[in-house]
Amino acid sequence: MKVGIIGAGSIGLLFAAYLSRCFEVIIYTRTEEQASEINKYGILLKKESNKTISFVTALPFTEWRGTEDLSLITVKQYQLDDIIGKINKMPVAPKNLLFLQNGMGHLKQLETICGQNIFVGSIEHGALRENSYTVSHNGMGITNVAVFKGNYGPLSHFVSSVPKEFPIVFRDQYTQMLLKKLMINALINPLTAILKVENGALLDNPYYFKALENLFGEASAILELENDTDYFQQVMDVCRTTANNRSSMLKDLEANRRTEIDAILGYILAEAKKRGKKAPLIETLYYFIKGKEIGVKGGY
Amino acid sequence: MKVGIIGAGSIGLLFAAYLSRCFEVIIYTRTEEQASEINKYGILLKKESNKTISFVTALPFTEWRGTEDLSLITVKQYQLDDIIGKINKMPVAPKNLLFLQNGMGHLKQLETICGQNIFVGSIEHGALRENSYTVSHNGMGITNVAVFKGNYGPLSHFVSSVPKEFPIVFRDQYTQMLLKKLMINALINPLTAILKVENGALLDNPYYFKALENLFGEASAILELENDTDYFQQVMDVCRTTANNRSSMLKDLEANRRTEIDAILGYILAEAKKRGKKAPLIETLYYFIKGKEIGVKGGY
Repeated sequence: MKVGIIGAGSIGLLFAAYLSRCFEVIIYTRTEEQASEINKYGILLKKESNKTISFVTALPFTEWRGTEDLSLITVKQYQLDDIIGKINKMPVAPKNLLFLQNGMGHLKQLETICGQNIFVGSIEHGALRENSYTVSHNGMGITNVAVFKGNYGPLSHFVSSVPKEFPIVFRDQYTQMLLKKLMINALINPLTAILKVENGALLDNPYYFKALENLFGEASAILELENDTDYFQQVMDVCRTTANNRSSMLKDLEANRRTEIDAILGYILAEAKKRGKKAPLIETLYYFIKGKEIGVKGGY
Repeated sequence: MKVGIIGAGSIGLLFAAYLSRCFEVIIYTRTEEQASEINKYGILLKKESNKTISFVTALPFTEWRGTEDLSLITVKQYQLDDIIGKINKMPVAPKNLLFLQNGMGHLKQLETICGQNIFVGSIEHGALRENSYTVSHNGMGITNVAVFKGNYGPLSHFVSSVPKEFPIVFRDQYTQMLLKKLMINALINPLTAILKVENGALLDNPYYFKALENLFGEASAILELENDTDYFQQVMDVCRTTANNRSSMLKDLEANRRTEIDAILGYILAEAKKRGKKAPLIETLYYFIKGKEIGVKGGY
């Protein structure tokens, strides 16, 4: 089975390193430089004190023809437009596409794709790209996948063949699967990025915890979450297990990079508008992050 | 006319320096050390490239008997309890008290005072305490005063005798006078302290400006402001004229000091509760600042 991986950030490199143990992997990079570095050095995966090098084929994104049995799209949501544009111009639509973005802002974009089977996933791993071919796997988790359009068959073969040290779990409902991750991202990311604190501070600082509760209440009401205490418990669990981590949004701003705020709070704001609900807090936190993004690097 | 000044922070030192040009001033300090330094060096007032030294009597606060013709209370709102406690234990209540706190949280406290005439003021000066006897007057403004309880007579004599380079203006309505300043503080202080930006960024960054509008809208609805565009215009004017300044709340947090958030957003939250109104945004911003205050220095 041939697997194409689009994007060679932390998630792209992580998946390429693990999946190459069971599949023939081709990774597509934004720049030619990165492709040639990966071809030369392989992908260096660091996990605790272990290091492994995996040799995979790397090509620049312009070479992607969508001919692999399965393509994993690992770029950020705000980089999807270019990729979807290219997919829709391909003479033969890719057979199976798995989208691994944060948030739920990309679902609307996925509806415009001509592909046959479209799957979505949510990732619970922590990974940090150290350089163009090195990724550190610093938070062990699972990957959840579900069908967005089409049938599960082709994904089933993939899911059952992945290395057991890198589990992928099938979920039959994509909405709930993505909502869980969305709520985690929507609460932890903006608050830690605005307050400039590690994730654990949202539990340990009693005032920050109240802010967390307020934000949860507003988001939960907009999204009309059922059993919302389960969602809140999960957010707290993640704060606890990643207490000493800096969230991806905080790290993005510290590194002067564009954040995923549009895919996260932007999605909830769009839902609020659609449902005729007010979102005074979420809207203002969204503006805080958008304001901080002014002048940072971005774009695929 | 003898004027007592309680508190020798930036505002206490500023008023002592200017008022000593026309009145006999006694300044009361928190520590004996500061009193003896002021007695030794005088108060050094810096304004642009000018420096003037004023010699006034300085005594530790424990020596205050409230016997001056007028006492100006210049401490922070959260330091008022000790002072009011002392006033209410004095064998003879002070004749005339002028309270110069930010916000409106102190009005409730003032109702408990046994003093004869109670006045309140709002200050538009910018001042920075550089050391225990040096103050820099870096923003020229006026001081507004109004009657809170009692009659204007005794204050009138004071107002008409102040040096003309340090104007004090009488207002016949203390509520509106304090509301204007409250709105300026409630908008500029928390936003700049959370976003860590200079005042001008709230106008120049289009997303921060939207956040400013959201916060204004919520506060204005709670306080039921009439002609609220006048208030918003005033906030924008202050952002513009102090564009390169860091707000006092931002400076407090940077210096690891307690802020005046309780007197400002805390007051608006109490009003929201009293009037049965929701304040999701103000409440959360309040929690942000309270959370940042954990572990800082405080107390009078």
